[in-house]
Amino acid sequence: MGPHVVPRQLVWLSRWQAVCAWGASVQHRTWAGVSRMPSLLSSGGALGASPLVRRSSSSTPPDAPEVVLTQQRYPVTRLPFSVVSAEDLAAFERILPGGVVTDPEVLEASNVDWLRTVRGCSKVLLRPRTSQEVARILRYCHERNLAVNPQGGNTGMVGGSVPVFDEIILSTTLMNQVISFNSVSGTLVCQAGCVLEELSRYVEERGFVMPLDLGAKGSCHIGGNVATNAGGLRFLRYGSLHGTVLGLEVVLADGTVLDCLTSLRKDNTGYDLKQLFIGSEGTLGVITAVSIQCPPKPRAVNVAFLGCPGFAEVLQTFSSGKELLGEILSAYEFMDAECMWLVTHHLRLASPVQESPFYVLVETSGSRAGHDSEKLSDFLERALSSGLVTDGTVATDQTRLKALWALRERISEALSRDGYVYKYDLSLPTERLYDLVSDLRARLGSQAKHVVGYGHLGDGNLHLNVTSEVFSPSLLADLEPYVYEWTARQRGSVSAEHGLGFKKRGVLSYSKPPEALRLMQQLKALLDPKGILNPYKTLPAQA
Amino acid sequence: MGPHVVPRQLVWLSRWQAVCAWGASVQHRTWAGVSRMPSLLSSGGALGASPLVRRSSSSTPPDAPEVVLTQQRYPVTRLPFSVVSAEDLAAFERILPGGVVTDPEVLEASNVDWLRTVRGCSKVLLRPRTSQEVARILRYCHERNLAVNPQGGNTGMVGGSVPVFDEIILSTTLMNQVISFNSVSGTLVCQAGCVLEELSRYVEERGFVMPLDLGAKGSCHIGGNVATNAGGLRFLRYGSLHGTVLGLEVVLADGTVLDCLTSLRKDNTGYDLKQLFIGSEGTLGVITAVSIQCPPKPRAVNVAFLGCPGFAEVLQTFSSGKELLGEILSAYEFMDAECMWLVTHHLRLASPVQESPFYVLVETSGSRAGHDSEKLSDFLERALSSGLVTDGTVATDQTRLKALWALRERISEALSRDGYVYKYDLSLPTERLYDLVSDLRARLGSQAKHVVGYGHLGDGNLHLNVTSEVFSPSLLADLEPYVYEWTARQRGSVSAEHGLGFKKRGVLSYSKPPEALRLMQQLKALLDPKGILNPYKTLPAQA
Repeated sequence: MGPHVVPRQLVWLSRWQAVCAWGASVQHRTWAGVSRMPSLLSSGGALGASPLVRRSSSSTPPDAPEVVLTQQRYPVTRLPFSVVSAEDLAAFERILPGGVVTDPEVLEASNVDWLRTVRGCSKVLLRPRTSQEVARILRYCHERNLAVNPQGGNTGMVGGSVPVFDEIILSTTLMNQVISFNSVSGTLVCQAGCVLEELSRYVEERGFVMPLDLGAKGSCHIGGNVATNAGGLRFLRYGSLHGTVLGLEVVLADGTVLDCLTSLRKDNTGYDLKQLFIGSEGTLGVITAVSIQCPPKPRAVNVAFLGCPGFAEVLQTFSSGKELLGEILSAYEFMDAECMWLVTHHLRLASPVQESPFYVLVETSGSRAGHDSEKLSDFLERALSSGLVTDGTVATDQTRLKALWALRERISEALSRDGYVYKYDLSLPTERLYDLVSDLRARLGSQAKHVVGYGHLGDGNLHLNVTSEVFSPSLLADLEPYVYEWTARQRGSVSAEHGLGFKKRGVLSYSKPPEALRLMQQLKALLDPKGILNPYKTLPAQA
Repeated sequence: MGPHVVPRQLVWLSRWQAVCAWGASVQHRTWAGVSRMPSLLSSGGALGASPLVRRSSSSTPPDAPEVVLTQQRYPVTRLPFSVVSAEDLAAFERILPGGVVTDPEVLEASNVDWLRTVRGCSKVLLRPRTSQEVARILRYCHERNLAVNPQGGNTGMVGGSVPVFDEIILSTTLMNQVISFNSVSGTLVCQAGCVLEELSRYVEERGFVMPLDLGAKGSCHIGGNVATNAGGLRFLRYGSLHGTVLGLEVVLADGTVLDCLTSLRKDNTGYDLKQLFIGSEGTLGVITAVSIQCPPKPRAVNVAFLGCPGFAEVLQTFSSGKELLGEILSAYEFMDAECMWLVTHHLRLASPVQESPFYVLVETSGSRAGHDSEKLSDFLERALSSGLVTDGTVATDQTRLKALWALRERISEALSRDGYVYKYDLSLPTERLYDLVSDLRARLGSQAKHVVGYGHLGDGNLHLNVTSEVFSPSLLADLEPYVYEWTARQRGSVSAEHGLGFKKRGVLSYSKPPEALRLMQQLKALLDPKGILNPYKTLPAQA
C-alpha cells in the first residue's frame, strides 16, 4: 500500500473535507458514493429504525428448537447438594414474601441461556430486593447445603448464568435502585440489578457516561457485568472494570455481608478485596451493589464506518488511528464480510458501506467538536489516500451513530438466528488475530455454515464464531481442542472477556499454569467451603 | 468570584494569548509579571539546575540524628521466627554466590526507611538476580521459619520496606532487567527491581510513557510500586495499577512461582490472581516481574503553575479544567503556601509564582500541540478573568516542565529536612479536603513547626504533613486518633496510596469493616501460613 490514490476516492475525499470544514454542524458524511446517502439518511430506513432490542425477547425465533438439558448434552454429575423441599420454599417465602417463583413457565426463561445452548432444571427462582434479603437467603442455603445460581440479565455467553441442574436461581432483577450519584465526581453507586442501558441513560442525563458499554446493554445487569468482568466496546478508552469499579458490596456464601462499597478513587488500606469478585462469575460471592467511576460525557462523538481491502489494512488503519486520533480514539472494532452478510440478512439492517472484505468502526470521543473533526479528517484523509480504506461513512448525530454501532453490536444476535453457534472469545496478538479465522474456514469446509471473525481489535480480542444448522458433535470435535491449542501456542487467552462459566471451565489450563489453578481452588474453598455458589462453573471439575 | 477582571492581568493575558498563537514553538510563557521571567528562564538558575535527586542519597543531612530502633519506639513484640544462623548464611551463599551481604555499614541503609523514622536490625541482606533464586530463598526460609522483608527502592512512607526486627532483607536491586517491550502495543515486561525512572526513559525512547510517575521515581522499583499500589502523579489520567498492570510473576511464601506474567489486555480465564498482590505490600508474595501497559507518549505536554487566592478557587479551577481541558488534562496537583516555603527554603528551589495562599499545577498531555494550546489558552483565560487564578506561568519544554514539577514533587523531601515528619495520606471528599489542614493548624498551635497540605486534588487525595524538631509523643497524641476519626467521619481512607506498612497497620479499621479485616487475615493465612512474609506489616497485630 503506497501513496497510490484512486481518482474517484479523491473526488469524494475533497467533498468530505469541504463538508468537514463546517465543523460541528455537519450531521452525516459519506464519501463513497452519493447514491448511498439517501438510504442511510432517510429516517424511515431500516437502519434508523432499529434500536437495540433486549436480548431476552429478541433471540428466540418462534420455530426455535427445544434446548437440550445440560445434563443430557454434557458429561456432568450432580454434586451432593440438598434438594429444595416444601419446607425450604416456606422458609424462602418468609424471607421474601411474594418473591418466590415456582411457576415452570416463568422459570423456563431463567433456566435457558440467551444463546439457547444450555438448560438447567431449577424449580425455584428467588427475587430479593435488598442485600439483607440476599444475606438471609444465602445463610439459609449455606446451612441447608442448597446450591445457588446467581443470575443478572442472563446474557452470558458461556452458560455461567443459568443452573446446570436444580440450583436455586437467585435473581437480581428487583435490585434495581440507584443508591447515589455524585454529579461532581461522577461516582455512581447502585444495586447490582440495574440494567446497564438504564444506568447509561441515568448518568448521561447528568453529564457522564458509563465506563463500559456492550451489545447486551438493554438486558444485562451491572452486577453481572462486574461478576464476569465484562470488557465491551469502551474498554479501549476507559480500561478494565478492575480499574473503574471503586467499590462492591458482596454477600459471601455463608450470608456475611462484605461492605467494600467505598466511593474513593484511592484506598490502600489493606488488600483490595473487591478485586477478588470482579470476574469470579458468582462463584466466590454474590455482588449486591456496585460503586463505579463514570467518566465525563464527551461533548463530541464521531463514528467512522470504513471498508478495508484486507486484514493487513485493518491493522495499519488502527496504527494510523492511534497516531492521528490519539486521546480521542474511543473504539476500534472490526468485522469481516460474513458478519456483514449475517446482520444484513438475518436482521435486515442496511449498511451504508458494502462489498468490502473487512469493515472497521472507529469511534472518537472528545471535549471539543472542532478539534475532533480536524483529527478525524486528517486520519481519514491519510487512510483513504494511502489505500488502507476504500469506502466509508461518518456519523455524528445520535441516531446514525447508533445505526452504525448496531451493525457491529448485533452480530451476536444475527449469529443466533443462523443456527447453533460455537463461540470463541480469544485474546491473541493482533497481527495474528485473523489467521485463525482463515485457518478454520479451510479446516472446516462445508461442515460449517459460517465461520466469522469480529471483535475489539484495539484490545487484541477476537470473537470467533462458527455456525451449523444444529449442534454437531463432529464439528465440535474439529473445533476443540484445535482452537484452544492454536491460541495457547500464541500465548493468548481462551476467554478474553466472556469468562469460563459452564462451557469453558475445562479449558482454563490452556491459559493458566497449574499453580494458578491450585490457588483459584484454594480461594474457592476459603470463600465457599461447601461450594454452593454457582457450582459447575469457572473452575474445572475436580478429578 | 464574578467576572471581575484586574486590569494588570488583562494586559498579561493578552500578551499570553499573543504568544500562545505561535503554537508549539513557544517555549515558555508567563503573564504574571515580566520581571519574574529571567530568573526562571536563565539556564543557570536554581530551578533549571535541580534535577530530581535520588531519595536514598538526598534525604540525610550530615547532622541527622540517629534513628531510634523501631522495637524501642513502638510497642511491638518479635514473633517466634528462627534466628539466622551461620548455617543459614552458608545456605544462602550456596543459592546466591556473592549475593549475601552481612556488612553492617551496607545493611544500615536497608534497615532504615527513607524518612528516617523506623529502623530494623537485620543482619543479612540477600540480592537475588532471578525469580528462581527468589524461589529457592523463600523455600529455604519457609522450611526454616525465617522471616523475610522484601525490599525494592526503600522509598515507602509507612515503614513497610524495612525490617522491624531481624527479618532477612530480600532486595530486588539486582533484578533490574527489561524482559521484553512490544513497540506496537506498548506492553513492557520487566523484572521487579527496575527503577521507575529508568523504565520511563526506556519506554519514552520508544514512543511510550509509564502509566505511573511519582516523586520517588529516581529510586523506587516497579515491583515496590506494584506491591504498594502506588498512585502518584499520573493516576488522574491513566488510572490505577489494578487497571494498567497486565500480569505479574510472584513467588509465594513457600517458594512456589506463580506465573501470571501475561501480556494480554484481556484475560477472563478464572480469577484475576495478580490483583491479590497489587497493594499487598509484600505480605502475600514477592513480586518478581511485572507486565504493564504503557500509554503512547503524548506529543505535546504543557504545565501551568498557577496561584489561587483560596481553596475554593483551587476547587473551581479544577472544575473549569475538567470542562475545558477534557481528555488532555493529565494532572491536577495542589500545594499550600507553607509547602512553597519549605521547597524554596530547604531545597533552594526558585518559583516563578509566589505569594499566593495556594498553588496548583495543571498538566495537559495530548497528541496535537495546536489543539492542546487552544484548550489550555481558553482554560487559562477563563481562570484568570474570573479571578480563580491570580498569577501563573506555563511551560512546554522539558527543562522547565521538570522545574515546575520539582516544586510539587520535592515537597516530601523538603519536609524531611524540616525535622520529624508526621505523615498522613488521606482520601477525602474534595470539597472538605483542606478543612482538616486548617483545623489541625488551629488545634496544634505552636506545638507543630509546620502543618501543610498538598496532593493529588484530582483524585481526592490529600497529603497532610506535620513537622516538629524531634519526635514528640504528645504531638502525636494530639494528631492520632484525631486525624483518623476526622477522616472516618467523612467516609474517607486513612491511607489513599501509601499503604499501611508498619506505621499505619493499626488504623485499618477506620476505613474497613470487621468482615473485610477477617477476610484479609484469612487470605494471609492461606497464602503465607507461617506468616514469614513482611511480618508486622499491613494487618493489625493479632489480639
